[in-house]
Amino acid sequence: MAERLIYLPLGGAGEIGMNAYVYGYGAPGKERLILVDLGVTFGDMDSSPGIDLIMPDLTWLEENRDRLEAIFITHGHEDHLGALAHLWPRLEVPVYARKFTGTLCRLKLEEMGLPAETVKFVDPRPQVIEAGPFSVQFMPVSHSIPESAALIIDTPAGRIVHTGDFKLDETPVVGDPFEPAKWSEIASEGQGVKVLTCDSTNVFSSHPGRSESLLADPIREWVMAQKNMVVATTFASNIARLKTLADAAIASGRKVCLLGRAMRRMVSVGFETGVLRDFPETIGPDEASDMPRDKVMLIVTGSQGERRAASAQLSRGRYLGLSLKEGDSFLFSSKTIPGNERSVGRIMNALSEMGVDAFDDQDGLYHVSGHANRPDIEKIHELLKPQIVIPMHGEHLHLREHVQIARGKGLKAEIATNGTMLELTGDAPRVIDQVETGRLYLDGNTLIGAMDGIVRDRIRMALNGHALVSVIVDEDDNVLPDAWVELMGLPERTRGGDDLARHIEAELAEFLEGADDKLVRDDKKMDDAIRKITRQVSMEEIGKKPEVTVIVSRLTAD
Amino acid sequence: MAERLIYLPLGGAGEIGMNAYVYGYGAPGKERLILVDLGVTFGDMDSSPGIDLIMPDLTWLEENRDRLEAIFITHGHEDHLGALAHLWPRLEVPVYARKFTGTLCRLKLEEMGLPAETVKFVDPRPQVIEAGPFSVQFMPVSHSIPESAALIIDTPAGRIVHTGDFKLDETPVVGDPFEPAKWSEIASEGQGVKVLTCDSTNVFSSHPGRSESLLADPIREWVMAQKNMVVATTFASNIARLKTLADAAIASGRKVCLLGRAMRRMVSVGFETGVLRDFPETIGPDEASDMPRDKVMLIVTGSQGERRAASAQLSRGRYLGLSLKEGDSFLFSSKTIPGNERSVGRIMNALSEMGVDAFDDQDGLYHVSGHANRPDIEKIHELLKPQIVIPMHGEHLHLREHVQIARGKGLKAEIATNGTMLELTGDAPRVIDQVETGRLYLDGNTLIGAMDGIVRDRIRMALNGHALVSVIVDEDDNVLPDAWVELMGLPERTRGGDDLARHIEAELAEFLEGADDKLVRDDKKMDDAIRKITRQVSMEEIGKKPEVTVIVSRLTAD
Repeated sequence: MAERLIYLPLGGAGEIGMNAYVYGYGAPGKERLILVDLGVTFGDMDSSPGIDLIMPDLTWLEENRDRLEAIFITHGHEDHLGALAHLWPRLEVPVYARKFTGTLCRLKLEEMGLPAETVKFVDPRPQVIEAGPFSVQFMPVSHSIPESAALIIDTPAGRIVHTGDFKLDETPVVGDPFEPAKWSEIASEGQGVKVLTCDSTNVFSSHPGRSESLLADPIREWVMAQKNMVVATTFASNIARLKTLADAAIASGRKVCLLGRAMRRMVSVGFETGVLRDFPETIGPDEASDMPRDKVMLIVTGSQGERRAASAQLSRGRYLGLSLKEGDSFLFSSKTIPGNERSVGRIMNALSEMGVDAFDDQDGLYHVSGHANRPDIEKIHELLKPQIVIPMHGEHLHLREHVQIARGKGLKAEIATNGTMLELTGDAPRVIDQVETGRLYLDGNTLIGAMDGIVRDRIRMALNGHALVSVIVDEDDNVLPDAWVELMGLPERTRGGDDLARHIEAELAEFLEGADDKLVRDDKKMDDAIRKITRQVSMEEIGKKPEVTVIVSRLTAD
Repeated sequence: MAERLIYLPLGGAGEIGMNAYVYGYGAPGKERLILVDLGVTFGDMDSSPGIDLIMPDLTWLEENRDRLEAIFITHGHEDHLGALAHLWPRLEVPVYARKFTGTLCRLKLEEMGLPAETVKFVDPRPQVIEAGPFSVQFMPVSHSIPESAALIIDTPAGRIVHTGDFKLDETPVVGDPFEPAKWSEIASEGQGVKVLTCDSTNVFSSHPGRSESLLADPIREWVMAQKNMVVATTFASNIARLKTLADAAIASGRKVCLLGRAMRRMVSVGFETGVLRDFPETIGPDEASDMPRDKVMLIVTGSQGERRAASAQLSRGRYLGLSLKEGDSFLFSSKTIPGNERSVGRIMNALSEMGVDAFDDQDGLYHVSGHANRPDIEKIHELLKPQIVIPMHGEHLHLREHVQIARGKGLKAEIATNGTMLELTGDAPRVIDQVETGRLYLDGNTLIGAMDGIVRDRIRMALNGHALVSVIVDEDDNVLPDAWVELMGLPERTRGGDDLARHIEAELAEFLEGADDKLVRDDKKMDDAIRKITRQVSMEEIGKKPEVTVIVSRLTAD
């Protein structure tokens, strides 16, 4: 059977987060594989309480692990590399990345006690990594973190360009500028570009994207206008932004103090890898608290309102000896990711209560996006002239819009969400399989399946409360008529003022008193009957049916 | 001691939601009181899982109930009247509202088996309601629901204007237009306006607010451009919008079908009270499903992504026999309230998966706000020329901004959040007391306090899981060495593959075996020791400390 080129997203397609894309080439079912990116997404109280990190379920890849050649990481954002240290032990293949990204990968592996040297540093194109039938080059792109790369993946079936996250920025402050000629070159080599797998995040933004360098003047002017202490927050990994903020501080006669572990780590990796050269000298929190307030700028983590980050801690009071006062100013040089509005709002209001003036991105004055907008995406279509466009890095509606744009220009395009395997060998993409995919939750230090029911039970307890019933069956299979009931997350008193737990106990005692031997001997039947009564009584008394756990303790003569 | 005028927000100041504002006049501590609005806010999974409705804790008012004269409801939104039926039994005073609002109040009271006639219908000014020392008139204002009113409250200490929610709309489609002359008139009567208590929701919007009537053309054009079935969603109470949408349907040769209980109820109350006169005839879902798809427009509830509303149900499949298909179109004629982005996003993506084109408000083309923007607020300052401005209906940062605007114009202004009692008798507002306030949660059919710990326990179970331990102490105060452990919302297996519950049981058995008599006789000590072991073992095995409930069953000889 003829060899074929396949594409299979295991994460990141039909969602924004936990990117993981597989390419394969070879005889059907025997394709040699590479994985592009291995990221996480973050949990939330609505759908995954108690879960910090969510990552793709790689079962399919693990089952085909002997066919996997390598992992390529496009850039250092958590949604592209955050799962590497957790899932690498299931794959154990070499990892390739540019130096800044690779250093971040190595730090993560080391923290988990894994071998850092599994991550190989790669130079930008023309260096080529051979991985089975794939020849891969890293093509520098601008994004909101240094050293992002698109991958140029040459295969016997033609050239793929996998953009990773990108924007078109000719003056990105830090890192490689966008140069249209370099993109045209990619299209002009060999047979040109067969497949473009392309970032879709900002496909609904109709104006061309704006350069990072546009922020320097507004941010400097803003800092200079402030009279007391200045605090700014942004993503720690946005090193260009850190530099813009720090430069503004210096221009206004302020010293810079970086707060938050991620902030200090990113700057240190930036220096170590050479991506950051002329960052101003910083001071520590002790020194900062001794300075006159109008001579300091804090640059802090927590732009999304994260509860434990520096910005949230400052909004609640002190952080490392520093505290804000009336007349201070706080800038969110960031965009609030949908879903984080309440957390960010909490901080803004807490600052307001202290008399601190909070400023947000003011419709773009103090923030630009790291992703290509619609006109930029179209420009890349034009420069690369691909035969096929596969949108990725987007929710379903982004992918769908991107497909419609591509088709509108006569390009072949297909929506492939997580688990949809496409064949790309022919003139147009073809869906050839649906692979089971899913999510893994990091819970404490354990990886659990999203569908294991554990988180579902937590959500149910949160919504309905939890009633616990303990019943004892003695050595002679007689049930003791006492039932012990404890409630958690439920009102103690009924509307009528009764004690709810005692009320349930009384109803259960009455039932147990008359329970026949057959029922008492059957755990399942006992459990069902007790649960039913508990829920019924609760419904009558408080209008709510709790989750119920029954423990039947059977005494044994010993 | 001299008589005084006081203001005390019990809800709605320092938050957007659950409005409840008290005014008082009389000798200190003996002021006669009125309450303006009695609304709810909605729970969310982050901070109040399992709670549908949140309302102000009226303890202070209940303790001073003999001083309360009446309740005035400014308009029919849930955040202004939603708590009435739940809390009226604690107050039992007459309720005054305009007819449309009053009818909604009566429906709510009737549903709870309370006397509807306690709600009195009031005509707009010049009708005056006398309530103790207060003379109150309802002044029509525009908002996103018919028959909204500002209250003109005359007191021996001067005139108060309490705006309620308002915008300045000279062409509001349904209801009373904004007429500047009428506002000037209020300022010119008697001594003019002493206090303006003013909506602050949109204080950060710098452009003047836009009229409801501006939407007619874009919405009609949008509907006419659609080829198959059209669905639109907005707040059911926005009757002007319903009319604009329905008119657009008729103009494009479509019949209108209203879906969702709230939608039908609002239109029916609109007809009954005369606020809605020329709404097009509607068809039922059966008839709609028999019509050609391009001859129907569904107007549905659920613009905020509410899980049980018509829009969410349609996005998941069928609703009352109707279902959407590829090529249909769906319009959110609404703004997503911060915090609801994920829910709305879920619907947009589900529609995208069906091939339905979803449209949102497109930066205002298909939606206008019901609240006054900054220039509108300033206009009201100018027309009413108040001596004192008290911002309400806003989070802290809105109130603070509004105070700064007022002070910038030389007006006296003060931030008063929930529980802050102001004296308004003098030339400037003065904080005279901090009253304890809080929130009540409607849980099932029971009102519980936000600080009762019930919801805190639910959140903890959701984050940490719940381990249940049952231990038995026999008639002779000997503890049985077996402990029964059940887990809810926790991984069954440790990283090493062990059964976590059995592992905890084994550790507990070992402890109980050696437990001394003193400990066994002490419930609290037993509980603490068992809890500690359970949490320690879990931490070691899964990296997580669960909530633990211990049931010690003490057998009695009987």
